[in-house]
Amino acid sequence: AFAQQVTPTSQSNLLLTDKGVKDYTRLLAEKPTSVQEIAQIKQKIDAELGQPIQVPMPKDAGGGYTHEQHKANQLSIFYGGILYQLTDDSKYAEHAKNLLFAYAKIYRTLPLHPEKKEQTPGKLFWQSLNEAVWLVYSIQGFDAIKPYLSEEDRRYLKADLFQPYVDFLSVDGAETFNKIHNHGTWAVAAVGMAGYSLEDENWVKMALYGTAKDQSGGFIKQLDQLFSPDGYYSEGPYYQRYALLPFVVFAQAVAINNPELKIFDYRDSILIKAIYAAIDLTYGGFFFPINDALKEKNLKTSEMVFGVDIAYSITQDPRLLSFAKYQGNFAPIDAGFEVAQALSEGKEKPFAFQSKRFRDGEKGDQGGLAIFRAESEKSNSALVYKYTAQGMGHGHYDKLTWLFYDNGEEVIRDYGAARFLNIEAKYGGHYLPENNSWAKQSIAHNTVVVDEKSHFNGKYSIAENAFPTELSFDISNPDFQWASAVLKEVYPGVAFKRTMFQIQDPAFEYPLILDLFEVQSEEQHQYDLPLHFNGQIIYLNTPLAANKSQLLPLGKSNGYEHLWNLAQGKAHEKLSQFTWLLKDRFYTWSTKTSASDELIMVELGANDPDFNLRSERALILRSQGRGNHYFLSALETHGSFDSKNELTVNASNQIQSLELIEKGGKKYIEITTKDAGSRSYPVE
Amino acid sequence: AFAQQVTPTSQSNLLLTDKGVKDYTRLLAEKPTSVQEIAQIKQKIDAELGQPIQVPMPKDAGGGYTHEQHKANQLSIFYGGILYQLTDDSKYAEHAKNLLFAYAKIYRTLPLHPEKKEQTPGKLFWQSLNEAVWLVYSIQGFDAIKPYLSEEDRRYLKADLFQPYVDFLSVDGAETFNKIHNHGTWAVAAVGMAGYSLEDENWVKMALYGTAKDQSGGFIKQLDQLFSPDGYYSEGPYYQRYALLPFVVFAQAVAINNPELKIFDYRDSILIKAIYAAIDLTYGGFFFPINDALKEKNLKTSEMVFGVDIAYSITQDPRLLSFAKYQGNFAPIDAGFEVAQALSEGKEKPFAFQSKRFRDGEKGDQGGLAIFRAESEKSNSALVYKYTAQGMGHGHYDKLTWLFYDNGEEVIRDYGAARFLNIEAKYGGHYLPENNSWAKQSIAHNTVVVDEKSHFNGKYSIAENAFPTELSFDISNPDFQWASAVLKEVYPGVAFKRTMFQIQDPAFEYPLILDLFEVQSEEQHQYDLPLHFNGQIIYLNTPLAANKSQLLPLGKSNGYEHLWNLAQGKAHEKLSQFTWLLKDRFYTWSTKTSASDELIMVELGANDPDFNLRSERALILRSQGRGNHYFLSALETHGSFDSKNELTVNASNQIQSLELIEKGGKKYIEITTKDAGSRSYPVE
Ligand SMILES: [Zn+2]
Ligand SMILES: [Zn+2]
Repeated sequence: AFAQQVTPTSQSNLLLTDKGVKDYTRLLAEKPTSVQEIAQIKQKIDAELGQPIQVPMPKDAGGGYTHEQHKANQLSIFYGGILYQLTDDSKYAEHAKNLLFAYAKIYRTLPLHPEKKEQTPGKLFWQSLNEAVWLVYSIQGFDAIKPYLSEEDRRYLKADLFQPYVDFLSVDGAETFNKIHNHGTWAVAAVGMAGYSLEDENWVKMALYGTAKDQSGGFIKQLDQLFSPDGYYSEGPYYQRYALLPFVVFAQAVAINNPELKIFDYRDSILIKAIYAAIDLTYGGFFFPINDALKEKNLKTSEMVFGVDIAYSITQDPRLLSFAKYQGNFAPIDAGFEVAQALSEGKEKPFAFQSKRFRDGEKGDQGGLAIFRAESEKSNSALVYKYTAQGMGHGHYDKLTWLFYDNGEEVIRDYGAARFLNIEAKYGGHYLPENNSWAKQSIAHNTVVVDEKSHFNGKYSIAENAFPTELSFDISNPDFQWASAVLKEVYPGVAFKRTMFQIQDPAFEYPLILDLFEVQSEEQHQYDLPLHFNGQIIYLNTPLAANKSQLLPLGKSNGYEHLWNLAQGKAHEKLSQFTWLLKDRFYTWSTKTSASDELIMVELGANDPDFNLRSERALILRSQGRGNHYFLSALETHGSFDSKNELTVNASNQIQSLELIEKGGKKYIEITTKDAGSRSYPVE
Repeated sequence: AFAQQVTPTSQSNLLLTDKGVKDYTRLLAEKPTSVQEIAQIKQKIDAELGQPIQVPMPKDAGGGYTHEQHKANQLSIFYGGILYQLTDDSKYAEHAKNLLFAYAKIYRTLPLHPEKKEQTPGKLFWQSLNEAVWLVYSIQGFDAIKPYLSEEDRRYLKADLFQPYVDFLSVDGAETFNKIHNHGTWAVAAVGMAGYSLEDENWVKMALYGTAKDQSGGFIKQLDQLFSPDGYYSEGPYYQRYALLPFVVFAQAVAINNPELKIFDYRDSILIKAIYAAIDLTYGGFFFPINDALKEKNLKTSEMVFGVDIAYSITQDPRLLSFAKYQGNFAPIDAGFEVAQALSEGKEKPFAFQSKRFRDGEKGDQGGLAIFRAESEKSNSALVYKYTAQGMGHGHYDKLTWLFYDNGEEVIRDYGAARFLNIEAKYGGHYLPENNSWAKQSIAHNTVVVDEKSHFNGKYSIAENAFPTELSFDISNPDFQWASAVLKEVYPGVAFKRTMFQIQDPAFEYPLILDLFEVQSEEQHQYDLPLHFNGQIIYLNTPLAANKSQLLPLGKSNGYEHLWNLAQGKAHEKLSQFTWLLKDRFYTWSTKTSASDELIMVELGANDPDFNLRSERALILRSQGRGNHYFLSALETHGSFDSKNELTVNASNQIQSLELIEKGGKKYIEITTKDAGSRSYPVE
């Protein structure tokens, strides 16, 4: 249809089309509450209309005034366009146009942002990532007001704003643009959508196939490489969520403008899988905080709103509507109005989370993430066993770690990232130094740490090439689900194998977690196994010597320097047991120990002069001078503490012994319970 | 009607009468969901019916098996009786009867409880308080099954269970019974209700007027002395809630059986005032945790369900129904069915919290508690300024302290009590040793501590006779509300005066809190003013030297031994400012300082070998070598941190200077703001 238009036509080419406008108009007339979302956007933009527009010279980093103002403007341009389409009121188009013109006036001559730091810089923003995001939103606003703009306006905006903008992202920023990485996805989405709207085939081709247009970079290659065959995004759930937005909005634009590419069918519907994966990688709506992840992110973020709406418009899966309902809003695009319509007809169906494993790696052969769910009227727990690859630069040294959720809470936790996003007083809103010194280190995770060093000695160059191998993932018996993985050379000459089980047995009130962590090494080492529990300490069956009147850090480096040693002592000669309380429920961790093992209670916060870290506690099991060794542990969920009626039930746990035995050449975990005798479970 | 019946009649005399049964029957037929509560009780008791009853020999302390079982039985007896009345099904009566008979068999010869500790012991329970509670519930169950019992049964239960039970509470336990204290209220309610149901006028008289029946003790004296004229209970909100149940249920029984006493009108309707006071002493449903208080208690506790239902049945105030709705259930008594009926008719009206002051002391002349509320569409904050009397044995050394709530959270907090109620592994569920060593100490509060000693040197004998005097409580101008109080001899030769303001001014996004704390002393002392903030540290405008690699306690005693000194340094030469983030909002505390002052960041947890304390942080402002001195501070609520849209707004505060000035012989607080110039406020 177009090759390279100097003056684009007035035809809208992006995600809001006549169909969406018609749907909205009908819904507004028939069921006005179903499109309440638009009334809110209208209110927000109406409030701006009286005010002079503000397009300040870029100055501040994330969280600062100019940063936030340019972000606000990208939304105003987007919403202005949308409202013009929906209401046909030219004041909204005029508002978007004025903003775009103000940017056109300055963009070409803008220098690089003064606060550039650690990342490729932008011009409006301190990092080029934000620069790409700005265009993804603004181009949609432009697209929507195309019918309002004169030919001259369109020519001017293309020449003075979008051409230099696209050049900045794709030519000056070629390295990022061609990178197989979420920053690259934002850039290609921005440029590709600009290409469709401004009718520039060259931009579209660059977006799809890289600046060289030879598939050495670009969207298709990103679809090939950034997701595993199960739709898992290599950087993990937090970035999966973030990366989804440019993927799905650009894919939608491709679907509309180049339907012959069948982009949503591409690679066995990889994008749809990725959207479902993002949903599966949550508990209580919140994303599993593995790798660099801010814990407050949940399914309500705008990325997931776009994702869910577009996925619904492609799949018509009514279970997706339950998330749209939870989100409480929809994207102001065709797909969003389709969702609003479906919700107004009560079409949503519940989404039942089930145990599931996501393979990692482009070919699915680089380990994976196993999620064991137990959702019933009584219980709602999730065991996350992580044996993925490193996950690029945002990955943590957390090989074979685990997390556990129950009762709406993160019970066995991961620190996530050390960062106050967009709070300037906190290191300009960047990742804090403690993200490297603590959050990424192995001791910050629920996995074995050898000789107080992080996995691969904390070297990314080694880590990026080391992938766990899945030995088993078996959920065929709902009462006995398990997964096992190994990783060689986590340290020189040291291999890890971990097998985790979720067992449902009437002897236990809630699902029982078993954990067999085997370390193979010919040399002798110190092995630390931390348990990052969440809750109030209730009981430990072996006394520790508390450091009552002086605290010292547990170590000097690799994260140990951030841990205060609160108390230390001999482990129990047979089975160390530790009970804590979280909300109204008790948890007991039982772990097989000998009197030569030690237990150390630690608290985060040492060597943290700027109070950047949260003060969380962990219990570390330390085994000195071991070669081949195994840790055998169980986690029980039990009882209740009902403060309303002042009733405490089952504050003590069931397990009394825990052994690894051999019968007929096969290994079993044998447990004895207080009230229900003993049982044994095969471990392979 | 009766004097002393050896064999009581079959007439029910307590809180469920024919009227309630009729109301229930009608509601069940017409609006079954409105009485869902009863279906739940039925389900619970039905599940028990197949099982053998368990009346074990008393052995365990709070939280242990026998303790919980006897508590469960008191409810089974109560509910069994209620269900018999409501359903006319004799299986429920039989269940309650069997339990009562099992107790009758053992009660007379039971020895004192083996786990007795620190308190007056019971027989079924480790403290006589639980013993009285048992009877308050069980007697209602007995009362309800009276028509089912034979004359012989009634005679037997009176002779073998209730007579020795009443003797134990009133004769053996005379000291507690006659005490003007909540333990006494439970005892008199138990005995008085037993008197009505078992038709023993002597018991009723003892309950109303003390064992000597001369008004030297008993219910009427408790009504006279335990509440201030505003309905404030001297031990504070936590115990106010707890004490309310026996007060209201017994009053209801008195109202039914001795209507001529007009008990709910007594002392200007003091009981009704007390119920409203309990509601006013909450934020977000949770009671202000002053004195020994467990923070998890809220308006949903059964005490408040009875309280709200009975208050509604007396006052017919539709605002009370909004709390009944929040509670989600009702008491299975006449008043409860009245509430269920009213709710089913949609009669509830919202309750708008307003600024209010509760005077303390029998005559209202022992200080008070001022609550400043700012409830609007945008804000929902509460400033609590506490200048009450000591509050009996559960009082803390917290003279002139304050608390602040906002955005659903406790922003400036009080530790409450150090106790894991009913968790046996935690000191048998008793108050922990740290309740005395930390929670009660002055440094655990937001008030001035002189020379690292607690108020009155932590001596109850001095504290119980020291009452602050209110100088002013003025809410006549909604935009400028304030209270001021003084207390002499908080320490020898040291007097405190504190004046707190809640100001609404368009220069500030949210209500501004001002705080002028004046210390008078001829001698020189060290003054510490702690700020127990809740949230993540964002910014301090003056650098502190962090104790990065070694922590030591801040002091040796009076609570200081529990604080780790995290960082210490010179205060700002003019105005120290500290910003933190809680949930999605920022808070900045500004306090006038000089370079000779110090700031100390502390964390709770030192000398706590059993991990009994929560690790919370506080910032302490320390002024050395002062005589007369004042602390002038402001608390600003500002901005927002929207992690969903990654927007941060107003992370920095408005106040730039803070001075106490004199103009024309009057004192003013003068503040300068960043964007709105300066203003001054009169301080007296
Ligand atoms: Zn991590
Ligand atoms: Zn206190």
